[in-house]
Amino acid sequence: MQTDITGRLLICCPDRPGIVARVSQFLFTYGANILDASQHSTDPKEGVFFMRMVFHLENTAVTIAELEKQFQETVATPLQMDWKINYTNHRKKMAIMVSRYDHCLMELLWRWRSGELAVDIPLVISNHEDLRQLTKVFGIPFHYLPVDADNKAEKEKQAIQLIQDANADFIVLARYMQILSPSFVSTFPGKIINIHHSFLPAFAGANPYKNAYTRGVKLIGATAHYVTDDLDEGPIIDQDVARVSHRHAVNDLVMLGRDIERQVLIRGVVAHVEDRVIIHGNKTIVF
Amino acid sequence: MQTDITGRLLICCPDRPGIVARVSQFLFTYGANILDASQHSTDPKEGVFFMRMVFHLENTAVTIAELEKQFQETVATPLQMDWKINYTNHRKKMAIMVSRYDHCLMELLWRWRSGELAVDIPLVISNHEDLRQLTKVFGIPFHYLPVDADNKAEKEKQAIQLIQDANADFIVLARYMQILSPSFVSTFPGKIINIHHSFLPAFAGANPYKNAYTRGVKLIGATAHYVTDDLDEGPIIDQDVARVSHRHAVNDLVMLGRDIERQVLIRGVVAHVEDRVIIHGNKTIVF
Amino acid sequence: MQTDITGRLLICCPDRPGIVARVSQFLFTYGANILDASQHSTDPKEGVFFMRMVFHLENTAVTIAELEKQFQETVATPLQMDWKINYTNHRKKMAIMVSRYDHCLMELLWRWRSGELAVDIPLVISNHEDLRQLTKVFGIPFHYLPVDADNKAEKEKQAIQLIQDANADFIVLARYMQILSPSFVSTFPGKIINIHHSFLPAFAGANPYKNAYTRGVKLIGATAHYVTDDLDEGPIIDQDVARVSHRHAVNDLVMLGRDIERQVLIRGVVAHVEDRVIIHGNKTIVF
Amino acid sequence: MQTDITGRLLICCPDRPGIVARVSQFLFTYGANILDASQHSTDPKEGVFFMRMVFHLENTAVTIAELEKQFQETVATPLQMDWKINYTNHRKKMAIMVSRYDHCLMELLWRWRSGELAVDIPLVISNHEDLRQLTKVFGIPFHYLPVDADNKAEKEKQAIQLIQDANADFIVLARYMQILSPSFVSTFPGKIINIHHSFLPAFAGANPYKNAYTRGVKLIGATAHYVTDDLDEGPIIDQDVARVSHRHAVNDLVMLGRDIERQVLIRGVVAHVEDRVIIHGNKTIVF
Repeated sequence: MQTDITGRLLICCPDRPGIVARVSQFLFTYGANILDASQHSTDPKEGVFFMRMVFHLENTAVTIAELEKQFQETVATPLQMDWKINYTNHRKKMAIMVSRYDHCLMELLWRWRSGELAVDIPLVISNHEDLRQLTKVFGIPFHYLPVDADNKAEKEKQAIQLIQDANADFIVLARYMQILSPSFVSTFPGKIINIHHSFLPAFAGANPYKNAYTRGVKLIGATAHYVTDDLDEGPIIDQDVARVSHRHAVNDLVMLGRDIERQVLIRGVVAHVEDRVIIHGNKTIVF
Repeated sequence: MQTDITGRLLICCPDRPGIVARVSQFLFTYGANILDASQHSTDPKEGVFFMRMVFHLENTAVTIAELEKQFQETVATPLQMDWKINYTNHRKKMAIMVSRYDHCLMELLWRWRSGELAVDIPLVISNHEDLRQLTKVFGIPFHYLPVDADNKAEKEKQAIQLIQDANADFIVLARYMQILSPSFVSTFPGKIINIHHSFLPAFAGANPYKNAYTRGVKLIGATAHYVTDDLDEGPIIDQDVARVSHRHAVNDLVMLGRDIERQVLIRGVVAHVEDRVIIHGNKTIVF
Repeated sequence: MQTDITGRLLICCPDRPGIVARVSQFLFTYGANILDASQHSTDPKEGVFFMRMVFHLENTAVTIAELEKQFQETVATPLQMDWKINYTNHRKKMAIMVSRYDHCLMELLWRWRSGELAVDIPLVISNHEDLRQLTKVFGIPFHYLPVDADNKAEKEKQAIQLIQDANADFIVLARYMQILSPSFVSTFPGKIINIHHSFLPAFAGANPYKNAYTRGVKLIGATAHYVTDDLDEGPIIDQDVARVSHRHAVNDLVMLGRDIERQVLIRGVVAHVEDRVIIHGNKTIVF
Repeated sequence: MQTDITGRLLICCPDRPGIVARVSQFLFTYGANILDASQHSTDPKEGVFFMRMVFHLENTAVTIAELEKQFQETVATPLQMDWKINYTNHRKKMAIMVSRYDHCLMELLWRWRSGELAVDIPLVISNHEDLRQLTKVFGIPFHYLPVDADNKAEKEKQAIQLIQDANADFIVLARYMQILSPSFVSTFPGKIINIHHSFLPAFAGANPYKNAYTRGVKLIGATAHYVTDDLDEGPIIDQDVARVSHRHAVNDLVMLGRDIERQVLIRGVVAHVEDRVIIHGNKTIVF
């Protein structure tokens, strides 16, 4: 029995009056203090209600299991809720997959060490050896799984095994340059975050900086999104852009883009870690 | 008795468990649907709780007066709340004071006519004649109150009278170049919004663009804030900046600054109009 | 013979040493003072050189015609230059085409009246009557040319006639909702500026805000570009974006988008008016 | 004698016609190709002309010394120029001084290793031991010079000695928390770059994030500037800001501020490294 718990409740249910009252009444009954709450209703035609509620429990007489059982019976079932509660005393475990570019990995590791990213990092998986040393400096296990045309399925299986053995809660593709198979993706639904190096839906697919240069755009961007089977089509968590001009060659765009990729990926990962994101169809609610 | 009301409840009270539960339970009892809710707690040492709750009431059997009386007795008094509810069927009345620059006035009038600014504008007061014609085109009464060293107190009295006769709910200083007396300010506490043409607290006082030029800053800004007796020291609602360089002479800063002033003022005014702002000491909570 | 002229020279030629020396030497011979100069070379493989040089001539003994003839013979021909000089004593004439949305027109007219947009506006052409009154307030002639499926070619001919009779130097499509025919476009090559209400190449075509909403992007944008025969594919002059979230319905995107459209269109038009833009293939150099 | 040199010429002189012609003619005589040129004139009252010209020399018959001597005699002296040429085959040497915060140091080292920062880093000096390990990982010598009230003059002398022995061209204060003495500053005039953690001139001095919190600003910032004897008053190279709200406690501002500090410092350092900055009085021209 916990004596000092902070929980983050995420809810999705049909919209109707009284939801906030019922949920907050339930929490109050157990002595919880609501630290933060955000809600969103889609347009009345669709009529879906979303809520994130952060609460704090001290010296409670119930176990989490009892609390959740009661919540299911007295609140969630009558209101037809999809819901979950994550507790901040469980640090999420984040697996990282990366290829050869170091900037996103570096940023994740530095934020982790500085305490900004409240996760454990049980492993880094790469299809190249280049970033082994950097990973080691931060004390993180590094796994080399080289992928080629013939062994892709097998290597993905090994990756899945490693990730599951580490009990990872989610996976960050920190410029991992291999396309994941539907089988890999469906093993971790809503749990794989990718950074794409363009302002999606512009320049989906390969070589976005080259295509941005060719088109002559005046801003380049990056997009953090959940991975689905449709390449670069998954729910977007965050995006940002930087100004460019005719003076920037493709290589300059690549260099400038690194900064946006780093920032956008971190913002997307932090939102996921703090349970601020609800996936709804192919879109996200980010509280 | 209204049959279709949307209310915006603003609350400030000592922080403690159960506030959200009590308020949402109260509203649910009257059949209200909570459309949006935001809350904020200051650090535990200060221990103040703020909330904005937007609710919708249909076919309710009670009058607003009864509802508010019940709320005071059963919720607000026990929880020591400062609170108010504004109803969207009461369009706020916005008085504008302006001198000779037209850009902020123009922007307010255009947003009003386009429907983005959900207010009535009963009057424009100016210490110059320059903007009479522009005001007239939009069909708004224009009052010319020239101020000099000798008649300031008298002209302020006339302005107060005009504003009160028009039942204005708040006043926007759209580049009004006279300093208001403490007596004027205290007549409309927390109800006067000013646009200052710098990123406060940098370059408070007169000639901010000239001072920004002299200092060689690389960004210039604007600040929307509530007016208090301390010039340029009141609670800030919104701020923004734009990039400048050595190529910009003072006049260029003035020109660029106009765009930021327009945007920041509108954002500040819209936040006030939608009851998103709570003033707390010399700071604001903007939900 | 002018006694006080400011010229803006735009150059495009094969890259080689000595271009700046020859051009600046030429201007110095005529007593010109170079007020500003910018240059750009494409990568060596393509090897194209671009330059914008602003110069001031006082009490010169030559006419502009002589100066330009000399420049052609002694500089431009030997260096195989495409070039032109625009003189600031010729205010460009800007024709505006618009449909029913007033925000872009309003912004253009306000900037013109405030002196920020150094052009004359000989006429506004619209396929709707809605904005006649607004145009009239600013003292600009308004021409109503309603377009339907049957009369499009005829109405375009009338528009061309009006624009040519007014000696307009360029045309701004301030949210003109008709697609121009290749024949119209080729009459004014590189002289039609459009504002598209998305961050191109994302959401080209109709209903960009609706498509942005459906995709769940976290930024919306606008693009000012020259019009070519390929819809929304012309050379981009400027772009910008604004942050949005799940809270924004399509209508909110439309409203927010208006602000970006206004700013981006003005920046694009000002760049064109100040002779800062060189079109090169399907891209622009914006000095 | 170099056979392939890129030089960056920086010029400051009284404004008059013919400067560009003379300089470009001089360079052309030696077979130089002008790769980039930017210029700026202050207002006519002050009448100062600034220029940055990047040129490329191949297979030249003269030495750099001869070239510069000729330039002095035939161009610089007659036109009363302050000037210098830096050559890109001389990589600048950058000394870093840092205290305990790692984010700015980390960013500098990562940019250096990635090749974005084209400098050598001969040493890191710190008044704390904390960042020795991080510095070592990148293979840079680390010098620990603990400063207290009694030994400050002596430790500064040691620092000066270390920096001079390393032939450092300039010094970056990457959150170095000691105030440098006038004697230290005057040893490296215009060669010390500091990152201040506020949008100067707002919140100069100590504890800017705490003061920003207390004032309730809606943007926080950072400023890269050259160090002069007047604390936080030196010429500004670059600045930037990030949006904050009532939700951000002081610690959140510190965390958010780290990102702005990193970006602004890098931009300032890169501008210095690429010889884009001319200091003029207490302001900068950044080409």
